[in-house]
Amino acid sequence: MNAPPLAHPVRFANLGREAACRPGETLFQCARRAGIRIVGACGGRGVCGTCLVRVVSGDYELLGEAHADGWLRACKLVPLGPCTVELAPRSTAAIARAEVGGRAAAFVFDTAVRVHDLTLTPPQLSDPQADADRLLARLGTSTIDVALLRELPVLLRKHGWRVRAVTRGDEVIALSSPGARVLGLAVDLGTTNAAGFLVDLQTGERLGTLGIENPQASYGADVVSRVNHAIRSSSGGPELQAAAAVGIAELARDLCEAAQASTGDIAEIAVCGNTAMHHLLAGLPVAQLGRAPFVPTVTFSVEFKSRELGLPGTPGAVTYLLPNIGGFVGGDHVAVLLATEARWTGRTALVIDIGTNTEVSLISSHGISTVSCPSGPALEGGHISCGMRAAEGAIERVHARAGRLEIKTIGDAPPVGVCGSGVVDAIAAFRALELIDRGGRIAGGAREIALAPGVAFTQHDVRAVQLAKAAIRAGIDLLLETNKIQPDAIELVLIAGAFGEYLGIEAALAIGLLPRLPLERIEQVGNAAGIGVAMALASLGSRARAVELAARCHYLELGTLPQFQKTFIRRIGFD
Amino acid sequence: MNAPPLAHPVRFANLGREAACRPGETLFQCARRAGIRIVGACGGRGVCGTCLVRVVSGDYELLGEAHADGWLRACKLVPLGPCTVELAPRSTAAIARAEVGGRAAAFVFDTAVRVHDLTLTPPQLSDPQADADRLLARLGTSTIDVALLRELPVLLRKHGWRVRAVTRGDEVIALSSPGARVLGLAVDLGTTNAAGFLVDLQTGERLGTLGIENPQASYGADVVSRVNHAIRSSSGGPELQAAAAVGIAELARDLCEAAQASTGDIAEIAVCGNTAMHHLLAGLPVAQLGRAPFVPTVTFSVEFKSRELGLPGTPGAVTYLLPNIGGFVGGDHVAVLLATEARWTGRTALVIDIGTNTEVSLISSHGISTVSCPSGPALEGGHISCGMRAAEGAIERVHARAGRLEIKTIGDAPPVGVCGSGVVDAIAAFRALELIDRGGRIAGGAREIALAPGVAFTQHDVRAVQLAKAAIRAGIDLLLETNKIQPDAIELVLIAGAFGEYLGIEAALAIGLLPRLPLERIEQVGNAAGIGVAMALASLGSRARAVELAARCHYLELGTLPQFQKTFIRRIGFD
Repeated sequence: MNAPPLAHPVRFANLGREAACRPGETLFQCARRAGIRIVGACGGRGVCGTCLVRVVSGDYELLGEAHADGWLRACKLVPLGPCTVELAPRSTAAIARAEVGGRAAAFVFDTAVRVHDLTLTPPQLSDPQADADRLLARLGTSTIDVALLRELPVLLRKHGWRVRAVTRGDEVIALSSPGARVLGLAVDLGTTNAAGFLVDLQTGERLGTLGIENPQASYGADVVSRVNHAIRSSSGGPELQAAAAVGIAELARDLCEAAQASTGDIAEIAVCGNTAMHHLLAGLPVAQLGRAPFVPTVTFSVEFKSRELGLPGTPGAVTYLLPNIGGFVGGDHVAVLLATEARWTGRTALVIDIGTNTEVSLISSHGISTVSCPSGPALEGGHISCGMRAAEGAIERVHARAGRLEIKTIGDAPPVGVCGSGVVDAIAAFRALELIDRGGRIAGGAREIALAPGVAFTQHDVRAVQLAKAAIRAGIDLLLETNKIQPDAIELVLIAGAFGEYLGIEAALAIGLLPRLPLERIEQVGNAAGIGVAMALASLGSRARAVELAARCHYLELGTLPQFQKTFIRRIGFD
Repeated sequence: MNAPPLAHPVRFANLGREAACRPGETLFQCARRAGIRIVGACGGRGVCGTCLVRVVSGDYELLGEAHADGWLRACKLVPLGPCTVELAPRSTAAIARAEVGGRAAAFVFDTAVRVHDLTLTPPQLSDPQADADRLLARLGTSTIDVALLRELPVLLRKHGWRVRAVTRGDEVIALSSPGARVLGLAVDLGTTNAAGFLVDLQTGERLGTLGIENPQASYGADVVSRVNHAIRSSSGGPELQAAAAVGIAELARDLCEAAQASTGDIAEIAVCGNTAMHHLLAGLPVAQLGRAPFVPTVTFSVEFKSRELGLPGTPGAVTYLLPNIGGFVGGDHVAVLLATEARWTGRTALVIDIGTNTEVSLISSHGISTVSCPSGPALEGGHISCGMRAAEGAIERVHARAGRLEIKTIGDAPPVGVCGSGVVDAIAAFRALELIDRGGRIAGGAREIALAPGVAFTQHDVRAVQLAKAAIRAGIDLLLETNKIQPDAIELVLIAGAFGEYLGIEAALAIGLLPRLPLERIEQVGNAAGIGVAMALASLGSRARAVELAARCHYLELGTLPQFQKTFIRRIGFD
């Protein structure tokens, strides 16, 4: 007897796509998993009737009655073998595009909210139906947000019973005048900075982008100090929650002001962040996250009413948090994987998001393995005596040329310090000129290496960079080792993150931050987390992919690997 | 061609019950509608697998895959014609009993919450799964209440990973030590008084009953003055909301104290009240309820997280509000119908809940017609010069005997006033002795009729009772008239309410409050609303029945009937 096949091929004829359908899985689930452009307002719960298909050939089982006009609901259809289907034109979602590292990433535009313009009959003595009953009967939904319910009688009468209703799944979450905007806000909540993207949820148009400093910074520069602040007293957690909420509210306010819109029209917010940022924004405890065995409160994706988090929006607006992976590796790394998926699918690849914590995923035929490397702030110019932010006068490039150090500053202004991209360059140049030895010791027993008048690297600064690069490189080495993959086998290295965008790749290779690979295999993709969270904001399909990706990541806690210490120490020096 | 049958008969063989299944309806929906004792933790959403049946004979369609052991999920089974089925023993809900007017009312004991005792594996470096992921994977549920999530890490560690989890549908709402109590509170929130019933949701045992005054009373004695208070200023609504919540919290505290339990163990609250009480507790606007066309904000049943209403309970506890009918006729009348359904089913009956507003339903082969009669407080001894609460010294009975007035006081104490039951008695006795004429005028032009030294009825008092009885009787007359039913055809009159319990039936007949019917057709059933809300607390089946009953009630706004004024005036006098 043959083993039963593990999956049926399903061809989506009019899209020219094929996907593998797992036994028992509905066509809708399969399509969502595979990133097929299927509309499904209710997420496959069988209540909206928007995911219509026609079966061209193949056996299938129906879990419910066939829809009108011979179309079937994909969420009620279970393929029993190879099938060819045709997606209804009205069920074929629009495609949106985002730029990732200068290349377009396409995704299905399929928001969690739907917009309905209605004219209702006003009640009278002969027709005294309750307001909510009247609205829901017309919309065909079964529930209404409580905060909206409290405003409903006034809103209906203020707008003269001609209204724009916004629904989310089976719930009405907003009511405004016809033609009012329906907005979404995507937020990449980083430890240091927060980036916001304002999107028109009806058209998919991006109305604005803005970056601000995370107001939590006043409670500590890095994740560990914030976690400690939250643990130290009962007011610590609420303070950090409020600070994160204030940051997002500021992004919302400034973006809406620039777009001549109102924050009260934001119907949905999507946020990604590392696990600590996620927990602090959500008001979740972090005590157990900060000590072994480093257990998050939750990793699956969670939703809150925005008002519960102190965030602006329509009365029933929802804030969706991307799923976490494990330890400190959170939804921001999931967002990076989501935004870059088209690049690495089917290849052996490293996806690296460099920051105070650096997340690295190794993608191969074995799956996805993910580690978090405690790289610290040195690579971004932090905790370096001459370090500074990327501002005018910051040394951003250092080269060894004709036996001398050559520098370039931002704005070509007189040098006042070194920013992140200059730090790695400088160390590579020091090595090239043998100003530091293999072990990192400054040659000739000097106290420091001058880059410019008043700007110098101390021995301590060099050590900080060594520790950072050793942490990242050890993570990469151990990922390769546990997956039994040779460095040469890596076809693609994607470097994400605001800092990663400016990193000198040749310098990174020279100091051994990255395995020695041909330059053309390495790509810088900028703020891929921001792109990923914007995709999740606008696309239920992308959210389903995010859940899939988070579940596929096998999280390796570096501290549990016996060889970590040895590998780390070996990588402190230079080759 | 014959018209297709409108419903299929379905026989539940092992229960000896038959129900009519509507075309397209699942067996579960049919069973719930018919009050069959079926368990269904998820309410028929297909996620719990507790509603198992076996089909003995008949055609059916399956909406999903068959469950193990040859049992099928009733929520996935649509009968296509007459069927005979057998309910799995584990899917047959227990029967609970409540007393209504001295007779037992049976209902299915099938709570919205489920209890699970678990021992979880503590996380370690080699198994760092997130806390919520670990719990939910074990429970097989997909979500957890946000407030509970915030306490989860501490609770799991405090209880050493041996816990009692409470789920509601697909959500975890509480976590405590194994063996902790899981409590429910049913509340009949009346305009004047609130009654509470504390129930053990695991055993169905009633742990205590308590009545207190509704703290809203300080904002006005009747519904209209409270509605006006809520409308007058922006703080009015929140004040009344808080007052109602305080009343329920007091009931919870005192009942739990008496049962040596904690209010933190209350996992579910069910509340019924008239539409104004419902809206004020829920924080819903009432402006449009107080003026024509008297439109509620909502009539369908709504649920809140208890914490959102300021009510005590487990972190994720829910407060369920029974559905309203229309105008001021709310969930309290639905609860009365629910508690008394077994009595009136298949008969032509009047169900009367006497209070400051008196709700009357006429049940007949035409369906259920319901009116709200503005009877005012006179029948309860309110707004009567000598009126008082039912306390020691209150005249509770008045008879005409041998040409003289005979009185009986509570506790046989010296008379100090007249309570509700004495008011109707007194008017009947005055008529019997011709102390008042057919028009209600006091004979001989006297100013008042003395009942006892210092206790007398003025002409104004008599008029107040006349207006009250005319309002109720006009409501009854118009119900009969619009349904073309003769008074004689009424087989049963059920009188509910704390006051209704003590009403002198013969006196009520004598003054024309009720149509003249043989005494044995009239039954007093006490606080049926309290029984009904306790049934809804303990039984999802009863909630489904409540929704059915509310939808079946055809609400008649008396003010819209042209003949109301004429009928009302005709009923002011005595026959």
